[in-house]
Amino acid sequence: MKLKEWGENNFIEYLVKLFPYHGSIIGIGDDCAVIPMKGKKAWLVTTDALIEGIHFLKEEIPPRELGYKTIAVNVSDIAAMGGEPKYAFLSIALNKTIDCKWMRYMIHGIKEACQKWNIELLGGDTVGSKRDLFLNLALIGSIDKEKIKYRHTAEEGDLICVTGCLGDSGGGLRALQEKIKDADYLIHTHFHPEPQPKQGKWLASQGQVHAMMDISDGLDSDLTRLIKSSKKGAVIEITKLPISEQLKQTCIKEGWDALKMALVGGEDYSLLLTISKDAFASISNSFKKQFKTNLVDIGYITKRSNLIYRKNGKTIKMHYANFDHFK
Amino acid sequence: MKLKEWGENNFIEYLVKLFPYHGSIIGIGDDCAVIPMKGKKAWLVTTDALIEGIHFLKEEIPPRELGYKTIAVNVSDIAAMGGEPKYAFLSIALNKTIDCKWMRYMIHGIKEACQKWNIELLGGDTVGSKRDLFLNLALIGSIDKEKIKYRHTAEEGDLICVTGCLGDSGGGLRALQEKIKDADYLIHTHFHPEPQPKQGKWLASQGQVHAMMDISDGLDSDLTRLIKSSKKGAVIEITKLPISEQLKQTCIKEGWDALKMALVGGEDYSLLLTISKDAFASISNSFKKQFKTNLVDIGYITKRSNLIYRKNGKTIKMHYANFDHFK
Repeated sequence: MKLKEWGENNFIEYLVKLFPYHGSIIGIGDDCAVIPMKGKKAWLVTTDALIEGIHFLKEEIPPRELGYKTIAVNVSDIAAMGGEPKYAFLSIALNKTIDCKWMRYMIHGIKEACQKWNIELLGGDTVGSKRDLFLNLALIGSIDKEKIKYRHTAEEGDLICVTGCLGDSGGGLRALQEKIKDADYLIHTHFHPEPQPKQGKWLASQGQVHAMMDISDGLDSDLTRLIKSSKKGAVIEITKLPISEQLKQTCIKEGWDALKMALVGGEDYSLLLTISKDAFASISNSFKKQFKTNLVDIGYITKRSNLIYRKNGKTIKMHYANFDHFK
Repeated sequence: MKLKEWGENNFIEYLVKLFPYHGSIIGIGDDCAVIPMKGKKAWLVTTDALIEGIHFLKEEIPPRELGYKTIAVNVSDIAAMGGEPKYAFLSIALNKTIDCKWMRYMIHGIKEACQKWNIELLGGDTVGSKRDLFLNLALIGSIDKEKIKYRHTAEEGDLICVTGCLGDSGGGLRALQEKIKDADYLIHTHFHPEPQPKQGKWLASQGQVHAMMDISDGLDSDLTRLIKSSKKGAVIEITKLPISEQLKQTCIKEGWDALKMALVGGEDYSLLLTISKDAFASISNSFKKQFKTNLVDIGYITKRSNLIYRKNGKTIKMHYANFDHFK
């Protein structure tokens, strides 16, 4: 059997079974691993790889944006549990014919991102690569143990919320692939994601926020993971999904399905969370005051273990395949 | 300018300048980064990438050995500072056509190594790769702050010691490349390195051990780094270098230069350390009792900042280029 037949989720389940974790440690299965320290604090650890030809096209992405993005996508994982990013470790595999100026721009993108989020780059590994460029970042963050938000703690009746527009980054990638003009906003969003550690930290301090994760593979995939992990189901009202005017316009112009972009576009790096229904009004008001953006409720958590889409209250069928890195 | 002209050491120096570290933290430049915790302990963090076509040939290395080696090379970095490995984070980039059985063998090699050194695999990232297989491990270890051994603390007059034979792994790689028969021992050493965390921990508890690191790129490269970092020089007596009977025999049979194999073969994963001259007899006696192997003294640290090789006391010239990942 080939890996593409086995599939990513089966492979991860296989790893989870083979490497159980012990005591108060949380291992494979959430955005970060959680390692409790003595006292009030815990460490969050995440690692993300970016591979040439899969996550980026070296000819398309400006090197500075690639460096920035390498940090940003990991910051998003720390944000997803409510923590603050602290220490980074970078592995780079480089072809020896790579241009030094290009490299220096990339490193400066990493530095820009480290400064933005107050991260110290403390180490890594620089090795040769025969062909493709590989980047891997391991990021350690810090959080008060009692504030950590997980994806397995959604409760029946919770409202499901997102903290930003969906599909812009996926639209930007498609605009690049199809060489579409006038899609600068979408392309910029794809190259320069804005993870939300401040929002994540604030939301983590709200007891009525029950579950949280970031949206990296698209709402459809990630919400499926959240409800599976929480042993719950979800109903999403598709008319409530926040879609930017820019994406809507491009979808009309190019004949794309905006809903599909929003659900499976991926790389949104906003937060997906569930909030006790009673607390939503107060939390979303405070959130708007604090961050000048909306906490958008898009549906609710159910007892049954499936994901249902509705349009104006009427159940509709969706045929979007979940994203799988191996398919 | 291309990266191969810039060179690995220049690239790392560029990174060190761009990412200075602060306070009691130690960042880029030693085997691990050191992050002090509250109380007596510090965390050690290291990360190492293994790239298909550079660090291994997928057709040559048994998958179980590849998994084992991914953990082992990082354990060696923790051992080099005297720590105990604790938590691992694995990133894998896989081509979707890879065989699942091969993958499972590799994962079982990782599990075998984790069990051997009591490591918990707590997370990682599994992504697709267009062509090459890419493995990255980030490993966190623990140590008492006061026992940490660095590479920048060698003192003039210290004896330079190694904890194992040199060149066997490099010989194994060459035997594979040249399809040589009767080199099973060397090939096994190449596939199945034995890092020395127990020895490292014991040596770290000896106050008269001044500097320590592991030998991963070959004694010549790594000792050059140690003396540069300590702002010292070194004299090595080449007749004292520990070379296994197996390597000697293969070198005679194949017409290889055994000394060159020992100095630049690489991937030895034994320890390189400097000990106060007065303490050597006592420490090496205890070491032999404890570990049933010798602590071999091969030279001494000098005030001048260069590396000199001698044969029976007489200075000789060496023309072995330092290993550079980008050349």
